[in-house]
Amino acid sequence: MALLVVGSIALDTVETPFDKIENALGGSTTYISLAASYFTSPVHLIGIVGEDFNEKYIQLLEDHGIDLDGLQIVPGGKTFRWGGKYHYDLNIRDTIFTELNVFENFNPVIPEKSQKAKFVILGNIQPNLQLHVLEQLLNPQFVVTDTMNLWIETALEDLMKVLKQTNVLIINDSEARLLTNEHNLIRAAKEIRKMGPEYLIIKKGEHGALLFSEDNIFSAPAYPLEDIFDPTGAGDAFAGGFIGYLHSVRELDFESLKRAVIYGSAMASFTVEKFSTKGIEDLNKLQIHDRFIEFRELSRFDDAGKF
Amino acid sequence: MALLVVGSIALDTVETPFDKIENALGGSTTYISLAASYFTSPVHLIGIVGEDFNEKYIQLLEDHGIDLDGLQIVPGGKTFRWGGKYHYDLNIRDTIFTELNVFENFNPVIPEKSQKAKFVILGNIQPNLQLHVLEQLLNPQFVVTDTMNLWIETALEDLMKVLKQTNVLIINDSEARLLTNEHNLIRAAKEIRKMGPEYLIIKKGEHGALLFSEDNIFSAPAYPLEDIFDPTGAGDAFAGGFIGYLHSVRELDFESLKRAVIYGSAMASFTVEKFSTKGIEDLNKLQIHDRFIEFRELSRFDDAGKF
Repeated sequence: MALLVVGSIALDTVETPFDKIENALGGSTTYISLAASYFTSPVHLIGIVGEDFNEKYIQLLEDHGIDLDGLQIVPGGKTFRWGGKYHYDLNIRDTIFTELNVFENFNPVIPEKSQKAKFVILGNIQPNLQLHVLEQLLNPQFVVTDTMNLWIETALEDLMKVLKQTNVLIINDSEARLLTNEHNLIRAAKEIRKMGPEYLIIKKGEHGALLFSEDNIFSAPAYPLEDIFDPTGAGDAFAGGFIGYLHSVRELDFESLKRAVIYGSAMASFTVEKFSTKGIEDLNKLQIHDRFIEFRELSRFDDAGKF
Repeated sequence: MALLVVGSIALDTVETPFDKIENALGGSTTYISLAASYFTSPVHLIGIVGEDFNEKYIQLLEDHGIDLDGLQIVPGGKTFRWGGKYHYDLNIRDTIFTELNVFENFNPVIPEKSQKAKFVILGNIQPNLQLHVLEQLLNPQFVVTDTMNLWIETALEDLMKVLKQTNVLIINDSEARLLTNEHNLIRAAKEIRKMGPEYLIIKKGEHGALLFSEDNIFSAPAYPLEDIFDPTGAGDAFAGGFIGYLHSVRELDFESLKRAVIYGSAMASFTVEKFSTKGIEDLNKLQIHDRFIEFRELSRFDDAGKF
């Protein structure tokens, strides 16, 4: 039973206070698939690239066991390119350029063998494309959705339709506030869950993440990093680790979702330690589990009884 | 063996989006002493008020078993007054007025019986007054210090002397950044610990708190509140719960400090649920311990082994 991953594939030009790289592997599908590949298989990737997409990137994805039957390679086309610059505090980034190229006419076609997928993750792309993916699936049972402020502002109607079919929405704190016009995140979470998602994850960058269900809240710490080299893809790697773990254990109770949030946080922490996808290209299960344990040590405390 | 609490006592006029109160009980000493009083005794309060200080506030402090031999009441004097207004998101506040009154010439005199205190908490007052307190103590062994951006900007030299004698510094994230000119809190914490404090606590409001030692970091969650009525005093109540718990158990290992951070967070959460000191006037140990357990449920997750 496949894990279906849909989203963007990009060539990123990224400048941070530490370094600059050009045409590095990027895009939501890429980070999600790579992160998920350490937990489970098969991972079916759906995406689009141009003829200029470097063969070594194809090889990298294949080396991670990612099924590329759903990857469209447009003859003569150019791959989606994004250029961004991070400021000193790494929380603010400017988009320098966006060249949609082949991504402009992306029509995600789900291969027949992937239409039976029950676990689906809709990376951050236009909500109408996310809807189009869902329409092609025979019986999706666990849909994880990512989105961004652009779609909240320009495609809210379609986004609301996606949310009605979403089991877990993953967004960041500013997006949660934008979507609800509510500053308090606990209130915002209540409102967003009314829009459809049974579970909501609010990512807070250096402050960790919150997981909400009807009755429960889980607060996950952030991994304490002195050096964040490149924040690009952290949110996608989080999503990949999250759904990868759940697809692996096939358990969807709140305790499992909490662990999945930590595994997602672990994958995000590996991602930001290096540029582009470098931080999640050469990991192993032991390293990932070790980091999970580090997260536990970071937030664990015991009750010593009465004072 | 007394717990010595030094700081300000004020009459606060506070406006939030929810309500407005005038001349309510406030000040760092007040919140710290009240919060600590649920954990331990004797609590010796050092502070100054004017003749206008309401007798019912004296009574409130005495009802909590707080020793007021170190409270100076200036005949004909007026109590320190502070007026502030919180904005919609409750993270930003404007100071509307500050009337120092008797606080302007505050010379903290430690009664002889209190000079033997080993546990001392220096609430947020001018660093030279904090130094003057330390000079009067015979053998302080555990000094917890609070400060603020004003003293970092205007009295850094004295503040650095205080830090050299401080075991635990409690500040918020913006103060940590200001003190070090370093955005990354993990790096900032390292620098601040080099200034003297063995332990550092960085409070992050709605994002919880971080506790740093030489080898360890502990990430405490924030209590998920839908309604924050009045943030005034939350940091002081945190400090009071923190040192009150430690003074009670007389253990200063990292595991105990972690629990103390949670008890501090619990007291802060009670504080912001009501105006002024109302939220920490009528609690009991069971309620406080129940909230400690809620914090544990909020952040607890288990390792289910390999994935």
